[in-house]
Amino acid sequence: MSVVWTVKAVSLGLVTFSLSVELLCWLRRRLRPRKTINEVLFFPSEMACVEHIFNPTSRFTCLCQLPHGVETSFSRLLSHILSASSSLDLCIFAFSNMDLSRAVLALKSKGVIIRVLTDKDYAAIKGSQTGVLRKAGICVRCNVGSVYMHHKFAVVDGRLLITGSLNWTLTAVQANMENIIVTEEPDLLRPFMEEFNRLWVVYDPAQYHCSSDQRPSHNSSL
Amino acid sequence: MSVVWTVKAVSLGLVTFSLSVELLCWLRRRLRPRKTINEVLFFPSEMACVEHIFNPTSRFTCLCQLPHGVETSFSRLLSHILSASSSLDLCIFAFSNMDLSRAVLALKSKGVIIRVLTDKDYAAIKGSQTGVLRKAGICVRCNVGSVYMHHKFAVVDGRLLITGSLNWTLTAVQANMENIIVTEEPDLLRPFMEEFNRLWVVYDPAQYHCSSDQRPSHNSSL
Repeated sequence: MSVVWTVKAVSLGLVTFSLSVELLCWLRRRLRPRKTINEVLFFPSEMACVEHIFNPTSRFTCLCQLPHGVETSFSRLLSHILSASSSLDLCIFAFSNMDLSRAVLALKSKGVIIRVLTDKDYAAIKGSQTGVLRKAGICVRCNVGSVYMHHKFAVVDGRLLITGSLNWTLTAVQANMENIIVTEEPDLLRPFMEEFNRLWVVYDPAQYHCSSDQRPSHNSSL
Repeated sequence: MSVVWTVKAVSLGLVTFSLSVELLCWLRRRLRPRKTINEVLFFPSEMACVEHIFNPTSRFTCLCQLPHGVETSFSRLLSHILSASSSLDLCIFAFSNMDLSRAVLALKSKGVIIRVLTDKDYAAIKGSQTGVLRKAGICVRCNVGSVYMHHKFAVVDGRLLITGSLNWTLTAVQANMENIIVTEEPDLLRPFMEEFNRLWVVYDPAQYHCSSDQRPSHNSSL
């Protein structure tokens, strides 16, 4: 009798062990978060129509001469930007690309809260989209002083970082060799969000302390 | 008797379950890889002595006027570059910073295999380190054509990616607002390694097909 029970006990132990392993593996699969976006885009981008990204119904109606239905680095970049549903923070040295400007304006018209930090020298040149954005009611702030605000990054909905060597210009997109990283990695995203918020305060015109030459002073470490 | 054995069997089952959970948790901890490096550095960097990074024994002997023993964005960048033990691939638009050049030369003297891709226009300007690197026996290749090779990235030992807005110049390090990502994330690292290897072949002078104006032709997608 005791031998039979011993066999039963050992069998029960083995079954329990197997079931617990199965249960843990199942729980691990269920609880594993979806894969974090980590994408790299290289430029120059192939030339292709991007009208359908702004207006999905135009996919079969656009008559422009560019190839249609082709996914490119630039179309991926546009799609990531247009995925914003609540906020878009831009910290861009040079911003003159009209498709990217159109994307930002489209988000503004959807109610997305947009903040733009750009370089004061580039903001003043012909072709800069700074004026267009300001006219649409978007808050644009510029650095002060003699140094460059040379960042080229965007934060979408506080969840997606877009950063790299690419300025938001036509030459950068269509001619230069450039790169962009698109990532949700929190260890990378968080510092950029903090830096944007820091610079947004530093370059708030309401915080400027005018000196005798009417140039606002700011943190000397910048 | 059977009640006693039932209790024993259930107890054995519970103990087996607990032990198997413990075992799996222990295995998970043991097998978990060390945390992947994901670091963001912002510039301008504070000014501090970096002599000890090149020569650790100088920590207490350097007499320069800069602060000593301070970790800065630039000292972190230098340390990451100097961590190379087998290879260093540089794809840098503007390279004139003499401390960074010194770091690359130090690696060369240790036997690290170094490849440098840089922009042909910037390589020709006064202060560019291209000539210094070539004189030291480092292979430096430049793009051809009228577009910019605007990347600013490095791959250390095929394991660590350094990329961002920062050109390797004194102004970028000490004055501009810039950023660098330092990451081991394979999904980010791999595309940059592949792009470097692709460009290295494209801009191999031995592969150039000279046209009538003696300008090498290359992939039209660049």
